[in-house]
Amino acid sequence: MSEKMKKPQIKRPAKKSAGKAVKQSAPKKTIYKSTVKSNTKKRNTKAPAKKKAPAKPPIRVTFLGGLNEIGKNMTVFECEGDMIILDCGMAFPDGDMLGVDMVIPDYTFIEQNRDKIRGVIITHGHEDHIGGIPYLLSKVNVPIYGTPLTIGLIENKLREHSLSAPAELIKKNAGDHVKLGCFDVELIHVNHSIPDSVGVAIHSPAGTIVHTGDFKIDYTPMAGGMIDLSRFAQLGDQGVLALMADSTNASRAGYTPTEQKVADSFDSLFAKARRNRIIIATFASNISRIQQILNCAQKYGRKVAFSGRSMINYMNVARELGYVKVPDNLIIDIDQLKEYPPEKVVLATTGSQGEPMSALSRMAYSDHRKVEVGAGDFIIISANPIPGNERTVGNVVDELLKRGCEVVYESMYEVHVSGHACQEELKLIHSLVKPKYFIPVHGEQKHLRKHVELAMSVGMSRKDIYVGDIGKMVELSENGMKEVDTVTAGKVFVDGLGVGDVGSIVLRDRKHLGQDGLIIIVASLDVYDGHVISGPDIVSRGFVYVRESGDLMDDIKDLALEILEDCSHRNIHEWGVIKNRVKDDVAKLIVKQTGRSPMILPILMEV
Amino acid sequence: MSEKMKKPQIKRPAKKSAGKAVKQSAPKKTIYKSTVKSNTKKRNTKAPAKKKAPAKPPIRVTFLGGLNEIGKNMTVFECEGDMIILDCGMAFPDGDMLGVDMVIPDYTFIEQNRDKIRGVIITHGHEDHIGGIPYLLSKVNVPIYGTPLTIGLIENKLREHSLSAPAELIKKNAGDHVKLGCFDVELIHVNHSIPDSVGVAIHSPAGTIVHTGDFKIDYTPMAGGMIDLSRFAQLGDQGVLALMADSTNASRAGYTPTEQKVADSFDSLFAKARRNRIIIATFASNISRIQQILNCAQKYGRKVAFSGRSMINYMNVARELGYVKVPDNLIIDIDQLKEYPPEKVVLATTGSQGEPMSALSRMAYSDHRKVEVGAGDFIIISANPIPGNERTVGNVVDELLKRGCEVVYESMYEVHVSGHACQEELKLIHSLVKPKYFIPVHGEQKHLRKHVELAMSVGMSRKDIYVGDIGKMVELSENGMKEVDTVTAGKVFVDGLGVGDVGSIVLRDRKHLGQDGLIIIVASLDVYDGHVISGPDIVSRGFVYVRESGDLMDDIKDLALEILEDCSHRNIHEWGVIKNRVKDDVAKLIVKQTGRSPMILPILMEV
Repeated sequence: MSEKMKKPQIKRPAKKSAGKAVKQSAPKKTIYKSTVKSNTKKRNTKAPAKKKAPAKPPIRVTFLGGLNEIGKNMTVFECEGDMIILDCGMAFPDGDMLGVDMVIPDYTFIEQNRDKIRGVIITHGHEDHIGGIPYLLSKVNVPIYGTPLTIGLIENKLREHSLSAPAELIKKNAGDHVKLGCFDVELIHVNHSIPDSVGVAIHSPAGTIVHTGDFKIDYTPMAGGMIDLSRFAQLGDQGVLALMADSTNASRAGYTPTEQKVADSFDSLFAKARRNRIIIATFASNISRIQQILNCAQKYGRKVAFSGRSMINYMNVARELGYVKVPDNLIIDIDQLKEYPPEKVVLATTGSQGEPMSALSRMAYSDHRKVEVGAGDFIIISANPIPGNERTVGNVVDELLKRGCEVVYESMYEVHVSGHACQEELKLIHSLVKPKYFIPVHGEQKHLRKHVELAMSVGMSRKDIYVGDIGKMVELSENGMKEVDTVTAGKVFVDGLGVGDVGSIVLRDRKHLGQDGLIIIVASLDVYDGHVISGPDIVSRGFVYVRESGDLMDDIKDLALEILEDCSHRNIHEWGVIKNRVKDDVAKLIVKQTGRSPMILPILMEV
Repeated sequence: MSEKMKKPQIKRPAKKSAGKAVKQSAPKKTIYKSTVKSNTKKRNTKAPAKKKAPAKPPIRVTFLGGLNEIGKNMTVFECEGDMIILDCGMAFPDGDMLGVDMVIPDYTFIEQNRDKIRGVIITHGHEDHIGGIPYLLSKVNVPIYGTPLTIGLIENKLREHSLSAPAELIKKNAGDHVKLGCFDVELIHVNHSIPDSVGVAIHSPAGTIVHTGDFKIDYTPMAGGMIDLSRFAQLGDQGVLALMADSTNASRAGYTPTEQKVADSFDSLFAKARRNRIIIATFASNISRIQQILNCAQKYGRKVAFSGRSMINYMNVARELGYVKVPDNLIIDIDQLKEYPPEKVVLATTGSQGEPMSALSRMAYSDHRKVEVGAGDFIIISANPIPGNERTVGNVVDELLKRGCEVVYESMYEVHVSGHACQEELKLIHSLVKPKYFIPVHGEQKHLRKHVELAMSVGMSRKDIYVGDIGKMVELSENGMKEVDTVTAGKVFVDGLGVGDVGSIVLRDRKHLGQDGLIIIVASLDVYDGHVISGPDIVSRGFVYVRESGDLMDDIKDLALEILEDCSHRNIHEWGVIKNRVKDDVAKLIVKQTGRSPMILPILMEV
């Protein structure tokens, strides 16, 4: 809020000097020099680096997450036997990962190299950057570095996981350098949808790699000041070996609007809401957005209550660390809502993605213990649906409308802005950093490809761009960039307390059970001659409504009995053979009568 | 194609005369007169109809589908003891309707009134308007009316269902009237994403109700000429009791672009594709789009092959009935693709929604028997993702990109236009039809609400607008509009051959099984004292990878045995009680060790 425009001067790189050898002003605390040339117009021409100095060692970058996917960002950098990890995120499961709570990267490569790892740098406190930390720490004990809010959120997360091993969490500020083996990692302030976000300049004997982290360029953010463009420009002038930049919005033209736009929209909507209660759903982690809600509530004389565990958690950490400024007596408990008239309160809530168990969904479906919504409620959904959530968000909006609520959603007003840079912002970063090589990161294939086109549109050559995938290791040096190895990488599923014990077979079975249900055929057979002593009994779940399908159940029972007795008479005692006959013949009967293929489980007991 | 601009004259209603009693020019073949007044500016003022003539009877409209949902459109009109049905569609299942193939309306109300039903009018051949017909016909035998292409597609559908009862299918053309009891239903040509679409004017003793069906206004459609705006205007001048209009795009500002835009885009993309093979995915039913593909292929000297069963079906019907014009020797079989160089072929395919089993998805995941894609393929996705499909479409695009294909998707080029009217088109229809009452149809709550706002913006009063829901019956007459009844209505699930035998309990079980899997505990007990003779055996599916969870399985087995023996010793023989103890205690053990809640099925056998 108050630190707005702290570093407003954008130092434009002197374009005239581009292409000439730029004099090095090595970043403080680094011990090596870079002689990488830079050229804004037609940089990266074939001319190899002049071999004045002894050849620099290469740097290897290994991607464990964040490429060809949104989420579970994790990248490993290795130089001269030292390794560092950038970010340690989780991803939300796709619709076909039934019952899976979250997805984390495969940490095999990390475990194999545990002795080389000097530390983990975290760019910001979102789940797709910190969500894997408890699981990583249960495998390897490494120090973790981040800005104060990021570390605060990690501490909170580790408490929830009640991790016994004390993690070494080290707070650093934007502008600070972290020395890790031969690496000097510099944190650079960027704008994003959570405060205290940083990009990094990884200074190494091989040269400097700039990684933007998640970022956008906001000249008028709510707090923390604008992105440190000057530092990106300085690094560009000094020579950058490679740029790795956020591709999330690489398909979107133009600029991401400033968070200030949202402030304006909120202001006019608060005026429009008049005597109605206001309910605003947004991302729990969007602390700037919550600050805006608090500001607007203060201005319009409303108290603010919170709903949703994750929002309360984020608020507590942010407030404790001073990242959100709360006027006295503004916040009330959700139980106090009824003590105030509707026009005197705002309820900030989770559920902007229509998540079935979230506070807003519960309100929409009359399933919230403390809040009942209806005519007289003015509801603002201050978020865009993440791809895949459009349908659930739409359903929640519909339910709220049916209850008579007024609902502001989608692009009706500018009540949400993205946290990621659009094409014009990306071009600016490319033009300032002027890297020798470029690697688009954080995005699906379509985003990475768009980012490649964009880099080429500002002058890069395709051969100096690398599109990676998880598990790929790429080696960069002054002399070239090439893929050198493929390491173990992939998706590890977390389901309840289990990590990695749900794999493709379990998921296949879940899908089968979920689609068509189950028929169990159980019988006790005589241990000597295999004749049926008891059963067969038929148990079904998720297949048909049994009470109305008695005939079918009887048919299945008769058929199974016939097969079992036949096997007994013919002296067939191999249970595998008997079970397969039962399974196949019953399956045929069922598909003929119902057109369905439930899972069929024959269970035979020897008595 | 050749019939372009058949009826291009828009006859604007004389605004000056609006509000005065308009002289009736009754539509031909109708036997009653309407005295409903109309007024574009401030129509529907409180002034009741002057009681010169004897009071007209009311008309009742009952919604069985299409409100608060996209799909399964079905509306029943009743006047003086006669009933007619408009459309008979299906809907695709939501993500939580596991294993369900399609959703149809509950036909109870139809069955209860079978004697009153005079016929079914179908507005066009899309699944959400014809998909329920086989199921309706299996309940009641009623004649079905539609335009030639619509009837052709219905015939095809009934053949697939091999319906034994011969349905009475009657072809009518736009402009024709269908007499059904006291109703005279006039078909009015409209534009939509399938040819031969109509809206209807339902002339009845109560007055005229205009229903647009699915429509848009296209001044330059590929074929069939533009929507018959003149007729809508004439009806408006003569007096319309109520308008029911398509709300699908009521949230979208402006106009839906003409299909001609797509022709232009295709032309430039064909030029751009050069020596690459072109693959275009679109809706199987979008016959105009297929015509465009054929035209462009002809122009650029490429042969056309088709992939996907539904596309081949639609093509066959449309071609047979002359709705698509195919130059000689243009179409080849998919097996012949390899005989031509890539620059000489186009493959038209299904799968524009990323459906897992569709042709395009199979190509993307290297699972198509006949087509392998890669670098050298130029793929155009000529459709927008239907809400809920964004993620699957995005995944297919990513896979295609990874294989090196060039992919045109989303809004990169104008390769798709909607089939539904946007706000400015809706305003035009409202202004021409000038109804006394308005009922927004075809849409979710958010679309219906937007349509209400739009109707009010062109002068209607909120009290003359009715927002319905399925199961609601509304009565309209000159004297007013009111909701009079609620009838049985809802979603009936079709799963395989079963219709309605999957309900909420089966779905709940499927969801449980799909999320957490299953543990079966089976034991044989002595019929006299209940002690364990065999087992307990533990069978699990979709829970954990059993081979790596031996300890847990042993723990479950030990616990179950302990409970069974304890029950035996304590003379507890009620199986319900024993099973519940096993279930509860095993559930506690599992949740403690794994954090999960699989379905637990104890099965006891008496020996």
